[in-house]
Amino acid sequence: MHCLVTGGAGFIGSNLVDRLLALGHDVTAYDNLSTGFRRFLAEAEKQPRFRLIEADLLDTARLTEAMKGVDFVFHIAANADVRFGTEHPSKDLQQNTIATFNVLEAMRANGVSRIAFPSTGSIYGEAAVIPTPEDAPFPVQTSLYGASKLACEGLIAAYCEGFGFQGWIFRFVSVLGERYTHGHIFDFYRKLSADPTKLHILGNGRQRKSYMYVHDCIDAMLLAIEKPQGKVTILNLGSPAYVEVNDSVGWITGHLGLKPEFTYEGGDRGWIGDNPFIYLDVARIRALGWEPKLGIREGILRTLDWLRANAWVYESRQ
Amino acid sequence: MHCLVTGGAGFIGSNLVDRLLALGHDVTAYDNLSTGFRRFLAEAEKQPRFRLIEADLLDTARLTEAMKGVDFVFHIAANADVRFGTEHPSKDLQQNTIATFNVLEAMRANGVSRIAFPSTGSIYGEAAVIPTPEDAPFPVQTSLYGASKLACEGLIAAYCEGFGFQGWIFRFVSVLGERYTHGHIFDFYRKLSADPTKLHILGNGRQRKSYMYVHDCIDAMLLAIEKPQGKVTILNLGSPAYVEVNDSVGWITGHLGLKPEFTYEGGDRGWIGDNPFIYLDVARIRALGWEPKLGIREGILRTLDWLRANAWVYESRQ
Repeated sequence: MHCLVTGGAGFIGSNLVDRLLALGHDVTAYDNLSTGFRRFLAEAEKQPRFRLIEADLLDTARLTEAMKGVDFVFHIAANADVRFGTEHPSKDLQQNTIATFNVLEAMRANGVSRIAFPSTGSIYGEAAVIPTPEDAPFPVQTSLYGASKLACEGLIAAYCEGFGFQGWIFRFVSVLGERYTHGHIFDFYRKLSADPTKLHILGNGRQRKSYMYVHDCIDAMLLAIEKPQGKVTILNLGSPAYVEVNDSVGWITGHLGLKPEFTYEGGDRGWIGDNPFIYLDVARIRALGWEPKLGIREGILRTLDWLRANAWVYESRQ
Repeated sequence: MHCLVTGGAGFIGSNLVDRLLALGHDVTAYDNLSTGFRRFLAEAEKQPRFRLIEADLLDTARLTEAMKGVDFVFHIAANADVRFGTEHPSKDLQQNTIATFNVLEAMRANGVSRIAFPSTGSIYGEAAVIPTPEDAPFPVQTSLYGASKLACEGLIAAYCEGFGFQGWIFRFVSVLGERYTHGHIFDFYRKLSADPTKLHILGNGRQRKSYMYVHDCIDAMLLAIEKPQGKVTILNLGSPAYVEVNDSVGWITGHLGLKPEFTYEGGDRGWIGDNPFIYLDVARIRALGWEPKLGIREGILRTLDWLRANAWVYESRQ
């Protein structure tokens, strides 16, 4: 089939593009290259079944044109910057909520009706139930990022009901692996490269996080779209385990052979709106036959090794 | 205090304006008069403590200017057209989601931090639990209207967490009473005025609805903002009872002394995205000391009497 991947030059998007091409699909990547890297698509661009459209999701004319002949949309593009949402509140509205509306309208204009969408475990706010199931008590949002993903989920579900779309909504924990270009491992490795003798940590280091390896994440999405559960399929995707930030710090510094002095800032959360503990109940996706292939520690170290071998991503992020 | 009421010329908004003035507050009504009526503000405009700003919520310059010196915002303006959402999907996005974002940003720019917001029982979608409590299982949206109100709720909660706002979110059932200018009583009375011998009903008439009288609704909001329960207070507002559409039809035709022939269209819901049964658990607001003063039947008949005495609203709605 012909898949359109928004954010196709990004971390998760480009890994998905490569996988879809390997499976024999035609792939259009749609990306404005604001945070994605054309270099991530070097292998994809060698294939005739691939095309990159360098354009913005707010450019509805280009988007509608790009959607022609598409069978399935993976709408991966997003402002994924949870932490700095309050510095530019319109970013989540524009790049997440309005962009998703534009994707849905471009689909409708072209008779495209199937969409997979990465949402976030942040949507559960300060979850009342942990591990948090998909039908947890109606949450209260704690970040602009979570609020915008909630808005996108609502839009997709309403299009499924109102326009006969079929949607898959995946609520992710943090994802890591090859081509990871933001987040705590990215930040820690940059800081340690600049000064191996100390490491400053946001929060008290006891924040518990449940990371997922990018190829496990892609496995889960591709499995789920083969097994729709109705108009809207909502699935948590995450590891059936969690670690503390301090665990991660220990593995990273140990792997690098460093013994920095640690300093901490803030209490049980790294910043306003940070969730000290996002841990999702992944029983639904496991019941479909999915199991992660990589543990959290292995995922962290594989990410670290990729960053060490690809220092250019730091230079490009200046 | 100085209250700004968006949608202040509308059904609920204008009733709230009159009440706030009666309580001695300064009131600014902000309304683009697209569905509101200046005539609803006839009494208010006699008072020096009142001003009407005729402007759109998408006009951020006017909105930011209007917010100067305001203490409390009642953000009542909305596209409340649930049924025809799929005919113009951008309307809910623009007039609800983006308009609410604009209100929040205008507040932030002026150091205004308290906001009350009417959300909707539609947000619970096909509720898994009835009567539906505020912490019902995380719902799946079934209408563009519900999705847009969900987006607004998320934004308000995120501003409370990120910017120190204090928010009150009220999830309404359908409201009726004086100045009611859309909805089933409005439609039925129009049809019966045109032809008293027949009445066509969307759905099978068995849809169950829990209506609330507008002054009971305003009582509840004003009570709740005196008793904040945290950064974000979320409260269902509705009647602790429900009726079937057929009950309402019987009361209306009986009150008018008519015996029309009834015809029905569709099954257990009136249109795509209609909820056959919205019935909210109102234990939280009752625990604060609120009780509705008017039953559903009385509310329906009072609405009908108001429509009979104010036929001009039909002419204005052509």
